[in-house]
Amino acid sequence: MTDTDLPHYVELANTGILHAIPVAHGMGVTVVEAAPGFAVAEVPVDGNTNHFGSMYAGVLFTVGEILGGVIGLTSFDSSRFYPLVKELTISFLKPATTTVRARAGLDAESVAAIAAEADANGKADFVLEAELTDTDGVVVARTRGTYQIRAHGS
Amino acid sequence: MTDTDLPHYVELANTGILHAIPVAHGMGVTVVEAAPGFAVAEVPVDGNTNHFGSMYAGVLFTVGEILGGVIGLTSFDSSRFYPLVKELTISFLKPATTTVRARAGLDAESVAAIAAEADANGKADFVLEAELTDTDGVVVARTRGTYQIRAHGS
Repeated sequence: MTDTDLPHYVELANTGILHAIPVAHGMGVTVVEAAPGFAVAEVPVDGNTNHFGSMYAGVLFTVGEILGGVIGLTSFDSSRFYPLVKELTISFLKPATTTVRARAGLDAESVAAIAAEADANGKADFVLEAELTDTDGVVVARTRGTYQIRAHGS
Repeated sequence: MTDTDLPHYVELANTGILHAIPVAHGMGVTVVEAAPGFAVAEVPVDGNTNHFGSMYAGVLFTVGEILGGVIGLTSFDSSRFYPLVKELTISFLKPATTTVRARAGLDAESVAAIAAEADANGKADFVLEAELTDTDGVVVARTRGTYQIRAHGS
């Protein structure tokens, strides 16, 4: 893979969200960076507020959670495996009143180990932590998700 | 309070969702029962699916999470306190392919203890566990949220 391939992942992820997860698309969740082992997504605050005018918890959940799906698709053989989320904890640290950016990554060694386990067992769990920041760089929430890649048809 | 007051809470909660949390309203999240210490909400699957055709994680999160807000408003003095969510863990147990119903409750003793603490300190945390079931009664997810009621203006 070369750097010139990277925009392809972003386009692929956003097309996937548009067609497969209309709720996330409706919130305005957009993948802005995606590569094997790495993803960044953003969501605007407009239309996504709660009863005190900051970003609703379910929107913060979505922009963080979705990174596991994106990284599941960019890091592993999507012709053989699909990602799903098993459990997720989200901590709300500060009210978010601007666009929020979520980022998460898996190092190459972890990606290789997960791929080897999935190859052997038809599935493998992976843990992904995401940091969510506002446009001032303030961390507004953190997520820790347990995801799984699983062989199609299993 | 008498039983005849109960529908008032349901109407109040749904009006609140409509005006204050447009994302949840857009998903079709509807409070179907609400009383001090108790709430039930539902969400349809149509329009709320993910990349394998079952209910998207963020929708399950929302129908479970919102019960903390509803119980926060029905169980404590909403003229003095507002509810917020601090942390939530959701476990996804089975794919949900029907309307999902989430229910959660706090016993009267817990409500009284939380109210007393908020009265003394201007805020109090409470933990709420919700069970999410499909129309066959299968538990599709569980949430465990830490919420807080906090005095207005604090």
